[in-house]
Amino acid sequence: MEQIYLDNNATTKMLPEVAEAIYEAHRAGHVNPASQHQSGQRTRRVLEDARERITKLLGGETTGMKPDRLVLTSGGTESNNLAIRGLTADAREANIVLSPIEHPSILETAEKLAQAGLEIRRLPVNHAGVIQADRLADLIDERTRLVSVMLGNHETGVIQPVEQISRFAREQRVLVHCDAVQAAGKIPVNFRTLGVDALSVSAHKLHGPVGIAGLLLRHDVTPAPMLSGGFQQQGVRPGTESVPLALGFLKALELWAEQSLQLEGQMRTLRDTLEARLRSEIPSLVVNGEAANRLPHTANISFPGLNRQAIVMALDMAGIACSTGSACASGSSEPSPVLIAMGLPEPVIEGSIRISLSRFTTATDIELATQRILRVYNALRRDQEA
Amino acid sequence: MEQIYLDNNATTKMLPEVAEAIYEAHRAGHVNPASQHQSGQRTRRVLEDARERITKLLGGETTGMKPDRLVLTSGGTESNNLAIRGLTADAREANIVLSPIEHPSILETAEKLAQAGLEIRRLPVNHAGVIQADRLADLIDERTRLVSVMLGNHETGVIQPVEQISRFAREQRVLVHCDAVQAAGKIPVNFRTLGVDALSVSAHKLHGPVGIAGLLLRHDVTPAPMLSGGFQQQGVRPGTESVPLALGFLKALELWAEQSLQLEGQMRTLRDTLEARLRSEIPSLVVNGEAANRLPHTANISFPGLNRQAIVMALDMAGIACSTGSACASGSSEPSPVLIAMGLPEPVIEGSIRISLSRFTTATDIELATQRILRVYNALRRDQEA
Repeated sequence: MEQIYLDNNATTKMLPEVAEAIYEAHRAGHVNPASQHQSGQRTRRVLEDARERITKLLGGETTGMKPDRLVLTSGGTESNNLAIRGLTADAREANIVLSPIEHPSILETAEKLAQAGLEIRRLPVNHAGVIQADRLADLIDERTRLVSVMLGNHETGVIQPVEQISRFAREQRVLVHCDAVQAAGKIPVNFRTLGVDALSVSAHKLHGPVGIAGLLLRHDVTPAPMLSGGFQQQGVRPGTESVPLALGFLKALELWAEQSLQLEGQMRTLRDTLEARLRSEIPSLVVNGEAANRLPHTANISFPGLNRQAIVMALDMAGIACSTGSACASGSSEPSPVLIAMGLPEPVIEGSIRISLSRFTTATDIELATQRILRVYNALRRDQEA
Repeated sequence: MEQIYLDNNATTKMLPEVAEAIYEAHRAGHVNPASQHQSGQRTRRVLEDARERITKLLGGETTGMKPDRLVLTSGGTESNNLAIRGLTADAREANIVLSPIEHPSILETAEKLAQAGLEIRRLPVNHAGVIQADRLADLIDERTRLVSVMLGNHETGVIQPVEQISRFAREQRVLVHCDAVQAAGKIPVNFRTLGVDALSVSAHKLHGPVGIAGLLLRHDVTPAPMLSGGFQQQGVRPGTESVPLALGFLKALELWAEQSLQLEGQMRTLRDTLEARLRSEIPSLVVNGEAANRLPHTANISFPGLNRQAIVMALDMAGIACSTGSACASGSSEPSPVLIAMGLPEPVIEGSIRISLSRFTTATDIELATQRILRVYNALRRDQEA
């Protein structure tokens, strides 16, 4: 029995074209892009061209007097850490505004800084999983250094009012960072339209390579570096940049951009089909975040009365790979902080799993997955009643 | 005219077998190694197997009660930052002992920490470029948290007395970190024989991929993490690990280990030939660090009276890619801090360039390079006299 992979929020499988692009780059004899000789200059041009194209594909400006800047990092975790740490550095008696449903790489970084005196202020979230943007006015003051809100939630897929938040924050001259790691490659993401100052995007969440991500920055926004010891990337992120990984990241973004509307529709249709089929068979089923706009590929589904760990393990045995939440938190058996923040009833939280599709998910996958989920559900219910 | 690449201390060209290994891994459908389902477990086994093999190839222990631990990072810069920052965290009124010839990722990181109160104590270096290990006794005291010394210098190739330093430091219960980024893949590097607590090694310096490096740690040594937000690597380095890059790193190390003696001899013979040929034609030529044991592939050569930037640029035009020093410092036009620390005369420092070979360097390359260097030298001399 072939495993159906429905854990694309943890990572996506690489597009064959991306693997080819990286392979070609590895064979092309690129050298260190920081080297001053002609070989180094040639490599640097390839890198800077890739950087510019990635920036454009994310809606950044690359021309004019105030071009945006793409800092390449090792992954979403580093991009988020760099944004939070780097944009609040040297802040005294300052505060940062977050939502309670951010990724652990935002929340735990902020908690760490709170130990050193940074105050964390939390935007509330409603039952649908939407950050309450209109509460921002109560939280921002002259000591607010940064607002960080995600675009699409990693557990529920709920799309957040980032434009509204950034518009208000920027009027107050407060910087805004947006974690778009789960949204990029699933819905259109446009840096300038979002109006934020910094945007995190990771390649391996959109069928690109693990090991590279971006932090896109407005021209006048410069985070304090976390690493020391090199002039690379204007000192914001020292360390040799990988040209092959940058080209892989670019290729993945290009392949998304070429077909984004179609792919978004395809994932949404399949996800909605799955939810509708399960609901028709299981009246008690809850789709968390359903009342909100959601990313097209994420279904956070609760089977109230059942245990999420038991469901995920049984599904794994039955041929479905999915999860209870963030892979970065998968050492944890704690219930989802996202669902808790939404104020959902405990049986709903305890019975919730995350199913996430990708462009590779087929109608057959969803048909088979539905059958397998129903079989597992019925078996777990029987066990419980016995 | 084909460019002869003699800047292998900046980066090495990838071995074809490494490119193949990464390509295969990209096509193998690995998922997130942190995922709990069977696909995640399979991926994790591949990752942990690679981690264990890399550890063994670096002379770490992987069995018994006290196995060493390999933390995977994004590069040598991150490994060195993690060692310096992570092993001196929470140090109050503490000091760190360094040599003045460490890589910028060590020196600048320490300088940064010095701003927060860490005292830096510097081991002297002799004219041959060797750190004076016997001076350690004068520098270590009960407030010393860490000694960090490199194995092979990135500019001169001079091999440092790391074993002697670590023996003394460990008697004093002081941790020792060793930056072996330039040494690994050029001479045998054995973690346990060196006797250090932490060792940095980078894949792209030994014909592996850019974007991955290791920080090998003794079982009981745990640096404070620089990143927050994930349980990966026991929390020491959160963020999704790249299985393809780990497999590429492993493959590069394996291909070195299989032929290390032969490759070391081959590089040394070619390097010595180059130096001898140039010396026979240019009596004033100085080989910096010549009196010391050196890595087999690095020649730091001075043409006293000439300007290093002019030489490197002229060599580039004449078909040789080399450098004036660290690529990480290549935005800088400052004279080499390594050669200054060695106390060399100013005309020697001003006229010094770094030539670095690899396993791909051939006798023909060296023959051609000798001719080109002599031609450039004579032309620059003529210009100067004119």
